[in-house]
Amino acid sequence: MFEAKLANSGLLKKIVESIKDLVTDAPFDCSETAMSLQAMDSSHVALVSLKLEVGLFDTYRCDRTINLGLSLANMSKALKCANNDDTCMLKVFSISPIFLQYEENEGDSIIFTFADPKRDKTQDVTVKMMDIDSEHLGIPEQDYAVVCEMPAAEFQKTCKDLATFSDSLNITATKAGIVFTGKGDIGSSVVTYSPSSNTDDESEAVTLEVKEPVNVNFSIKYMNQFTKATALSDRVRLSLCNDVPVVVEYPIEENGFLRFYLAPKIDDEENME
Amino acid sequence: MFEAKLANSGLLKKIVESIKDLVTDAPFDCSETAMSLQAMDSSHVALVSLKLEVGLFDTYRCDRTINLGLSLANMSKALKCANNDDTCMLKVFSISPIFLQYEENEGDSIIFTFADPKRDKTQDVTVKMMDIDSEHLGIPEQDYAVVCEMPAAEFQKTCKDLATFSDSLNITATKAGIVFTGKGDIGSSVVTYSPSSNTDDESEAVTLEVKEPVNVNFSIKYMNQFTKATALSDRVRLSLCNDVPVVVEYPIEENGFLRFYLAPKIDDEENME
Amino acid sequence: MFEAKLANSGLLKKIVESIKDLVTDAPFDCSETAMSLQAMDSSHVALVSLKLEVGLFDTYRCDRTINLGLSLANMSKALKCANNDDTCMLKVFSISPIFLQYEENEGDSIIFTFADPKRDKTQDVTVKMMDIDSEHLGIPEQDYAVVCEMPAAEFQKTCKDLATFSDSLNITATKAGIVFTGKGDIGSSVVTYSPSSNTDDESEAVTLEVKEPVNVNFSIKYMNQFTKATALSDRVRLSLCNDVPVVVEYPIEENGFLRFYLAPKIDDEENME
Repeated sequence: MFEAKLANSGLLKKIVESIKDLVTDAPFDCSETAMSLQAMDSSHVALVSLKLEVGLFDTYRCDRTINLGLSLANMSKALKCANNDDTCMLKVFSISPIFLQYEENEGDSIIFTFADPKRDKTQDVTVKMMDIDSEHLGIPEQDYAVVCEMPAAEFQKTCKDLATFSDSLNITATKAGIVFTGKGDIGSSVVTYSPSSNTDDESEAVTLEVKEPVNVNFSIKYMNQFTKATALSDRVRLSLCNDVPVVVEYPIEENGFLRFYLAPKIDDEENME
Repeated sequence: MFEAKLANSGLLKKIVESIKDLVTDAPFDCSETAMSLQAMDSSHVALVSLKLEVGLFDTYRCDRTINLGLSLANMSKALKCANNDDTCMLKVFSISPIFLQYEENEGDSIIFTFADPKRDKTQDVTVKMMDIDSEHLGIPEQDYAVVCEMPAAEFQKTCKDLATFSDSLNITATKAGIVFTGKGDIGSSVVTYSPSSNTDDESEAVTLEVKEPVNVNFSIKYMNQFTKATALSDRVRLSLCNDVPVVVEYPIEENGFLRFYLAPKIDDEENME
Repeated sequence: MFEAKLANSGLLKKIVESIKDLVTDAPFDCSETAMSLQAMDSSHVALVSLKLEVGLFDTYRCDRTINLGLSLANMSKALKCANNDDTCMLKVFSISPIFLQYEENEGDSIIFTFADPKRDKTQDVTVKMMDIDSEHLGIPEQDYAVVCEMPAAEFQKTCKDLATFSDSLNITATKAGIVFTGKGDIGSSVVTYSPSSNTDDESEAVTLEVKEPVNVNFSIKYMNQFTKATALSDRVRLSLCNDVPVVVEYPIEENGFLRFYLAPKIDDEENME
C-alpha cells in the first residue's frame, strides 16, 4: 500500500503542468524515502528528473517500492478538480482492492482525495494506472564549469524574448557575466547579466560561479518548455559545461527538485565560433 | 406602452448571458406584476423559466399585457453597450410610434436607454422585435423528495470537474449527504457534501432536506449550461425526485428567479443500479 | 549618428502597437528637433502622422537628418522584450559600424537597448532597417467647424459599441451636443454627449467648440483601428468639418502627438440626408 498526503494540491498541480507537454506517460517510483520520476521527452532529446522527498509530505507511507504508471494528461485532469489550497491525499491499493468503494473491478488505480479542511466536502478522483517501462538512466556525476543562479522569472522572460528572433539560444559565461544571445533573420537580441553587485534582495540576485568560461548553444524550444516550471520556484540554477548537457534545476521547497537535462546543439556552436 | 427601469444594467446582462446559448429567440411576457419568460431550449430537452417581479425595477409601467419577442443574441449585443452600473430603461412604443425619434418607419422595436447618472451621456439602443410563439407550458406542482441549497460557485465547479470524466452526472442524496459522481473511461470523480455542521457563514452552507433518498442521472452538458447563471446569485437550489425533472433555481434578489428544468437520463440510471 | 533615450519603453511600445496594424513599414524621419513619421495605411484610406519632439526624450542627438525605415512588426517584436519601465535607448550607426559588436557585417541596423536601472542587466535588440520611400504629404491647413475633446476611453467604447450594429459611424455635432450613430439590420445605437456641465473632473469632461454644425459619416472599421492609441493618452481630440477628413488626435505628454486622418464616406452621407 502507498499513501501520501500533501498539505496543498497546488504543488503537484504545478509539477504536472510543468512537464506534461514534455512527457506523456510518467513512471513514478515510490520508495520509503521519496517519490521520484525520470523520463525522456518523446523525441528523446531532453531528460526530466523529479524528486519529492518524504519531507515534502504531511504523511507518507510506502510499504514496498512501487512504480505508479500514470498518464500525465489524466493526472492533470484529476488535479484540475482540486483547489490549490485543498489537501491532496494519494492512495494506491493492492490488486485485490477490498477497501476500494468506487472502482472495485477495475484493477490498479490511484485515488486522489482533495479536501478543504474548512468545508464538509471531499472529492475522490480515481485515475487508472498503466504499465510504463521505467528506464533509470544513470546520470554521470559532472563537475560543471559554470553554475549560475538567477530569478526563475528572469530566465523565463529571456528565453521567451530570444525565441522571437531565433531557434537557438547561445549562452556564454565568464567571470564578467552571463550572456544569452538569439540571432535570426529579422535581427538579434543579446541579454547580459553581470553578477549582482547589490545583494540586498537575495531572491533577485544573479550569482555566478565560473571555473572556466563556457560557450554553448541549445534549442530554445526546449528551454521554453522547461521554464513552465517557473511557477514551482523563485530561483533557477543553470549548470553548464562545454559539450555537456545543461542542467536547468528548480528546487522544490528544500525537499526536492525538478531538473531538466538538455544536450547542446553541436552544429550551431561551430557556426557561431 | 411598456416602460421599465432597472437601477443597473448588469442584472439584465447577466440574465441574457445565462440563457442565450440555450434559447435563441425569447418571448418575454410583460404583465402588470412581472416580466417573465418561458422557453424550451432548441433541442426541447431543457426548460428555462424566468420571472422578474415589479419589485426588481426602479419604475415599471405596463398598460396591457404584451409579449416582447427578442433575439437573445441581439439583446446581448445591445446590453454589451452598457456599463454594468448604468441604469437601464426599456421602452416599447405601440405601432404608430409618433414619439419615437430614430426608428420612425421600422415598426415595433424595443429601446434600451443606458445612462450613467454621473455623466452627460445617454445611449439609446433600438432592437427590432419579432413574432415568437409563446408556449406557456403548465409546469405541474411537484412535491420534491430532496431539496438542496448550496453555494452556486460550488455547484458550478462540481459540474465542470465531473464533465472532465463523464457525459453523465449522477446525483444521489440521503440524509447523510449529497454525492455527485461522474464516471468515464479515464477514471471517475466523486464529490461528497455533508450537510454543513458549521453554520457561521450562511452563504457557504450546504443545506439538505430529504423526504426520501434519490438517485438520478442527468446530461452534464446541460447542467454546465445552467451554471452560467452563477453570476446571478450566490446560492443555487436543486429540487430532486426520482424520475422527475430536476429544478436548478437561481433566486434573483428576492424578487424573481431563473429556473432550469431538466429531465433525468433514464438509460444511464438503469445501468448504474 | 542617431542616439535617443526614452525614460521608459512603454511609450514607444504603445505607439507601435497603436499603428502596426494600419501601417506595415514605417519611415521615421529624425531631425534635430523631432522624430516623426507620416504614412498612409496599406489601402491608402487613412493617414497616420506621428511627432515625438526632443522634449519627450531623456537624451537626444541627431547629427544630420536621417530616415529610419523599420518594419513595425519587427519593431513590435523588439519592444516586447522590454518591460514598460525599462529605459529605451535607440542607436543607429553609420555604414561602417566599427563600434558595433554584434552585427558587424550586416549593414544598417537600429539597436534598441533596454535597461532596468535597478538590475545588473541590459538587453540589446538589433533590428535591420530597410529602404522605405518617405512620402511627405502636405497636409493643408484647415479651419475646422467642430472641435470636440473627450476621454479617449469613451470614444473607444462608443466606436466599439456602434460597430456591433453598423459599418458606418455617423457623427453630428451642434452646440447642443455631439451624437454618434450606428444603424444596421438588427437595430441601431445612438450615443449622445452634451457638453459637460460638471467641470470638476477635467479628464472626464466632454468639451465642444462649434462654429457651424457638422454631419459626417466614416468607416467605423478605421475608427476602431485608431482607438488602439487610447493607451497613449487620457484624452482624444476630434476635429470635424463637412466633406473634409476628420482628425483624431492623441496628444503625447505635451511634446508630441499621434494623429489619424480619415476621409468621410460620401455615399452614405447622401443616404442619410
